[in-house]
Amino acid sequence: MVYLDHAAASPVDPRVLAFCSRYLAGDYGNPSALYSLGLSARQALEEARERVAALIHAESPKSIVFTGSATESNNLAIRGTALRNRKEGTHLIVSAIEHISVMNPMKDLQKAGFDLTVAPVDGEGVIDAAFLEEAVSAETTLVSINVANDEIGTVEPVREISRIVHEQGRYLHMNATAAAGRVPIDVVRDGIDLLTLSSNDLGGPRGAAALYIAPGVRIASVMPGGGQERGLRSGTENLFAIAGMGEAARYAGAEMAEEMAREQAIRDALVREVLTIDESYLTGHPTDRLPNHASFRFSRIEGESILLNLDTLFGIQVATGSACSSRTLEPSHVLLAIGLAHEEAHGSVVMSLGRQNTQADVPVVADAMARTVERLRSISPL
Amino acid sequence: MVYLDHAAASPVDPRVLAFCSRYLAGDYGNPSALYSLGLSARQALEEARERVAALIHAESPKSIVFTGSATESNNLAIRGTALRNRKEGTHLIVSAIEHISVMNPMKDLQKAGFDLTVAPVDGEGVIDAAFLEEAVSAETTLVSINVANDEIGTVEPVREISRIVHEQGRYLHMNATAAAGRVPIDVVRDGIDLLTLSSNDLGGPRGAAALYIAPGVRIASVMPGGGQERGLRSGTENLFAIAGMGEAARYAGAEMAEEMAREQAIRDALVREVLTIDESYLTGHPTDRLPNHASFRFSRIEGESILLNLDTLFGIQVATGSACSSRTLEPSHVLLAIGLAHEEAHGSVVMSLGRQNTQADVPVVADAMARTVERLRSISPL
Repeated sequence: MVYLDHAAASPVDPRVLAFCSRYLAGDYGNPSALYSLGLSARQALEEARERVAALIHAESPKSIVFTGSATESNNLAIRGTALRNRKEGTHLIVSAIEHISVMNPMKDLQKAGFDLTVAPVDGEGVIDAAFLEEAVSAETTLVSINVANDEIGTVEPVREISRIVHEQGRYLHMNATAAAGRVPIDVVRDGIDLLTLSSNDLGGPRGAAALYIAPGVRIASVMPGGGQERGLRSGTENLFAIAGMGEAARYAGAEMAEEMAREQAIRDALVREVLTIDESYLTGHPTDRLPNHASFRFSRIEGESILLNLDTLFGIQVATGSACSSRTLEPSHVLLAIGLAHEEAHGSVVMSLGRQNTQADVPVVADAMARTVERLRSISPL
Repeated sequence: MVYLDHAAASPVDPRVLAFCSRYLAGDYGNPSALYSLGLSARQALEEARERVAALIHAESPKSIVFTGSATESNNLAIRGTALRNRKEGTHLIVSAIEHISVMNPMKDLQKAGFDLTVAPVDGEGVIDAAFLEEAVSAETTLVSINVANDEIGTVEPVREISRIVHEQGRYLHMNATAAAGRVPIDVVRDGIDLLTLSSNDLGGPRGAAALYIAPGVRIASVMPGGGQERGLRSGTENLFAIAGMGEAARYAGAEMAEEMAREQAIRDALVREVLTIDESYLTGHPTDRLPNHASFRFSRIEGESILLNLDTLFGIQVATGSACSSRTLEPSHVLLAIGLAHEEAHGSVVMSLGRQNTQADVPVVADAMARTVERLRSISPL
């Protein structure tokens, strides 16, 4: 088996699991409880907060709020700030290639009376800075743009975006789910007001995510209840997942340079090999892209057929578009946004690498891919 | 150590952990992915759904939506139905002893223009049925009442409540976080439209909870995104926690009668012993209460002091009020609702039993409690 869909789900790093398993059966206290078992849980929670803060160079662990998923962090960032700052303005901006957990809350706010601008990207997925500069006004309370896109790998020019947004607008939210631990992020230096991070994408368990909220950002809770996490995210903290996220963030920070160089070398070799196939094209930016990410399109065949063939005949797992939209027949809005025609967008394959991948995977995948494309084209009616 | 705060947090049942750990490192697929690893994840997800449905005798697994926490299930039930059915009516009813993750979304809706009635309970925590009958009207779109209360243990007359609500009102939501797996629940027979269940309270991992939604109930999503869980709860499913919840639900259903008889016998002995202490009183209903639950108040001393003494000197963990409100100095709204004066409410101690407790705990706890109360009263200024 060669697993190349780490953007959809990753195994928990065994070192992380060894660290956080204690919170399932032994140290199972509720961090809000006043006795010793609760206090040690509270301590573990705050230690995880420090580790996540350190990964993105936040000014203080207090700027980190733990949630249950990246989707929830995105919802809190978007609905929480848009609704809380409604009196200051009702204009929102989103890039055309955002994840649907950013896109859909934005569209809901649009239905509720907000004014939504969708900023285009170029053919390589880079935000149109001139458009953005034109679009941001004093009415703009929130702009949401991903640090890197999980379907085409493109890394956005974060500091330029931040400069443009803050000339006239209020807050910049960036979804770093795919980027955190893969490209360096410094929320203070980069001027990011809100940042979404996910545990599983760092090698931690599912069930935890974080939202960085810069000091002074006015934000409302979107899940009222017991008032945990500074009143912004109620519900007993999932300490197993949160402590795991903290430990995963620690490894991600300490090992990023080395591990990403390793994965990038494998990725570069993969890209080189796959592009020798006739009528195959890289999607997204050729160089400004996530080091673990390769995405392609192939003419005259369906990405879904490629995926199923690679899985069934070769034990190789890849994606076509994002896992979240895998059950619809619509072509990915991301691929349409970079200018692909419908039939081109349908021939997409995404490979996202992780710690378990090695150079030995390259010839296996390249060979399987070449044979699969040849086979599918031989039976294609197109 | 004698742990008696299972209402706040429970260790994961080792059998459950043995079952669901595979979804952390081996079977880590995203249930939305189309390849084999995704399909087996999807299968595990649906199997968990069947198991949770079976525990509460739902008509179909399709009626179960997985969320990340009981707080989230309560928010989805309350905000999702109130907002979706706004045109049919804007009157909401809640009992005076609901958990804050029910109370606070209700209060938020009140601020947003809904009309909220708080239904009183009697001195033993039982809902005032005559008041409820008077309050429910054709304008009432949602009534939310807990099956059992986690602070005073009282089990509500579910079928009577259901009959009253449905005479004129629309939906009945019941929070069964403390009750599921401890008292039999049959959502169809009992006439419940929406029911909240939590994984950890069943002995599963934190990070999963469920909302039962009866067929035909009109409900809106409160977390837009990738459209998982019938579009009602977006975000990649936390399969480790969900599969664990399913397995925990299976054990809870199969072993409820036997295990609850066992815990009730321990609880009854505990109550008998503790009530031999001077000026000690049981709170909540003497018989219609959760079989694993004992709650007391002691005159002239603080529950918090009792808790800290029991923890520090005897290694016994109990609660005073609910863990969620443990960090405020306010007396519990539940204890005030059953008619206790402020100073009476401050002397509260809650013990909630679990699988790890045995009859051997009874003399240990009773002795520690008697000594603690005596010691604290000897230094009390009151």
